[in-house]
Amino acid sequence: MSNLPTFSDVLSAADNLRGHAVHTPLITNSMLDDRVEGRVFMKAECLQRTGSFKFRGAYNALSRAGDEGRKRGIVACSSGNHAQGIAEAARLMGQQATIIMPEDAPLLKKQRTARSGATIIEYDRYLEDREMLTQKHAEETGAILVHPYENHDVIAGQGTVGLEACRDLQQLGLEADHFLVCAGGGGLMAGITIAAKHHFPSVQIHPVEPEGHDDQRRSHIAGERLGGNVNTPSLCDAILTQMPGEASFAICQGQLSDGLVVSDQEAMDAVAFAFHELKLVVEPGGAVTLAALLSGKLHVAGKTVLATLSGGNIDPPVMARALDI
Amino acid sequence: MSNLPTFSDVLSAADNLRGHAVHTPLITNSMLDDRVEGRVFMKAECLQRTGSFKFRGAYNALSRAGDEGRKRGIVACSSGNHAQGIAEAARLMGQQATIIMPEDAPLLKKQRTARSGATIIEYDRYLEDREMLTQKHAEETGAILVHPYENHDVIAGQGTVGLEACRDLQQLGLEADHFLVCAGGGGLMAGITIAAKHHFPSVQIHPVEPEGHDDQRRSHIAGERLGGNVNTPSLCDAILTQMPGEASFAICQGQLSDGLVVSDQEAMDAVAFAFHELKLVVEPGGAVTLAALLSGKLHVAGKTVLATLSGGNIDPPVMARALDI
Repeated sequence: MSNLPTFSDVLSAADNLRGHAVHTPLITNSMLDDRVEGRVFMKAECLQRTGSFKFRGAYNALSRAGDEGRKRGIVACSSGNHAQGIAEAARLMGQQATIIMPEDAPLLKKQRTARSGATIIEYDRYLEDREMLTQKHAEETGAILVHPYENHDVIAGQGTVGLEACRDLQQLGLEADHFLVCAGGGGLMAGITIAAKHHFPSVQIHPVEPEGHDDQRRSHIAGERLGGNVNTPSLCDAILTQMPGEASFAICQGQLSDGLVVSDQEAMDAVAFAFHELKLVVEPGGAVTLAALLSGKLHVAGKTVLATLSGGNIDPPVMARALDI
Repeated sequence: MSNLPTFSDVLSAADNLRGHAVHTPLITNSMLDDRVEGRVFMKAECLQRTGSFKFRGAYNALSRAGDEGRKRGIVACSSGNHAQGIAEAARLMGQQATIIMPEDAPLLKKQRTARSGATIIEYDRYLEDREMLTQKHAEETGAILVHPYENHDVIAGQGTVGLEACRDLQQLGLEADHFLVCAGGGGLMAGITIAAKHHFPSVQIHPVEPEGHDDQRRSHIAGERLGGNVNTPSLCDAILTQMPGEASFAICQGQLSDGLVVSDQEAMDAVAFAFHELKLVVEPGGAVTLAALLSGKLHVAGKTVLATLSGGNIDPPVMARALDI
């Protein structure tokens, strides 16, 4: 990416998304607040169109591709949430989308991607390189590649999550002390960093990752992009990436506070908490921020906290396991 | 009840609830809108404190009971949602609550009532009269009886559901053509009728009930309160009542449009739709409005529709059944 997105790109993404993306609410819960002794505002992107924030970046990118996208088609790689975002945005735009998905992606995510009319090509996540497969498809077919996070318009679109959250908090007369973000490749975190640091310059932004996949945390400590071990199994499929994106890393460098890491069990406990107490359907990868708060990874007593609940596309059997049915 | 609540009572209930009840969002979903060819705004009271709208009326009533409530204690009868609302409001007020609950009330509702510190007395829903039991307890102990719908302050509190929904819709520059309300004793419907008819005088308000429990529909057609058959089993435990409340019937008389009736299966399909598509946890009785829309009980093409999702306190095994896990 030659030029990195700025706050004005986030503002124009917000204009672009108006009437298409859901302005999701900030959810509060007195039991959670009592437990952490702070005020937590959860940005419920599980309520977003297609069930995750990914629709924002996808729609922003595809609407800018416009006629060119209709002529050439779109290709994207994704474990599921970017896939659904792209597939649905393409349907709305009258573009044909092809999605390169790992064959062990959650069934629900495959089904929901297919129902928007996208073509799915499966690959083996442990043996094949999805970036190369996607690049090859783009070269062979001429389709426009929309990367899940190495893309200017995608990052700007995800930034609207932060924009809405900060504006809504300001309307309540509050300022955020902390912003916990579910982190995979870092597109959401980069977009949120742009918006949140504009509104609240001293806010502490924390990437939250699953155990064994804390490449964001380690990279930002090291000051360089480090690879993770994608072979470590995790239920947090939505946020498993090989290493931080180049663009998102550049945007976030020097802007982040401590990275937080949660176990699969902590993520599943947060899924159950969201079900029972918040009445929200959240997937494990979308619940890691809540998991970090519930398991006390960050001391937020007396603080105002924003946290993303980034998606809700959970297979029913995984929910059954979380609820111990 | 000697005097019926008015719009100004709803306004003062809103003042009273500010900072205590959640201002719940209106949820939209493009798939639902496409399906009914209209614009549906769901008032997600499952996101309310204690998981249902009942907290509003309970808090409004108990805060007005104040010191008297602290001295005498509170007693209420409820299958679960009013119970939780009363128990939590009493905890916040420093009052002692006793709840008369049917022994076959959902386990989750009993547990959540107990954890707020209320004392639970169980009865047999098929053999005993809960109204009499509650009255007797109040007389013997001197506790203040807070009826789930035959109560001025409770109805005014529930009216804030309608107040928020109408104001939020107006902020979007829209007017409601229809308002679908989950109806049991009618406290919520009465409160909503007061607020909605103030904001949108020509809005059509529809009670929605489970099959075999359509006493609101039949009573409003007959022009007098008719009893239902409480022995007909239904999964919609939240809205099974013997007959419309006297006060709510008086408030709603001549104000309602066609009552809608859904089967348990339609309610369960709506619970599954809410899980998969809205990412909301809704209980069967709270999903009857969505069920009516999904099963085409009302033609809303081209219309703007408000609908309550009144609660989310569902036992996990019931959710598992809805999701066919």
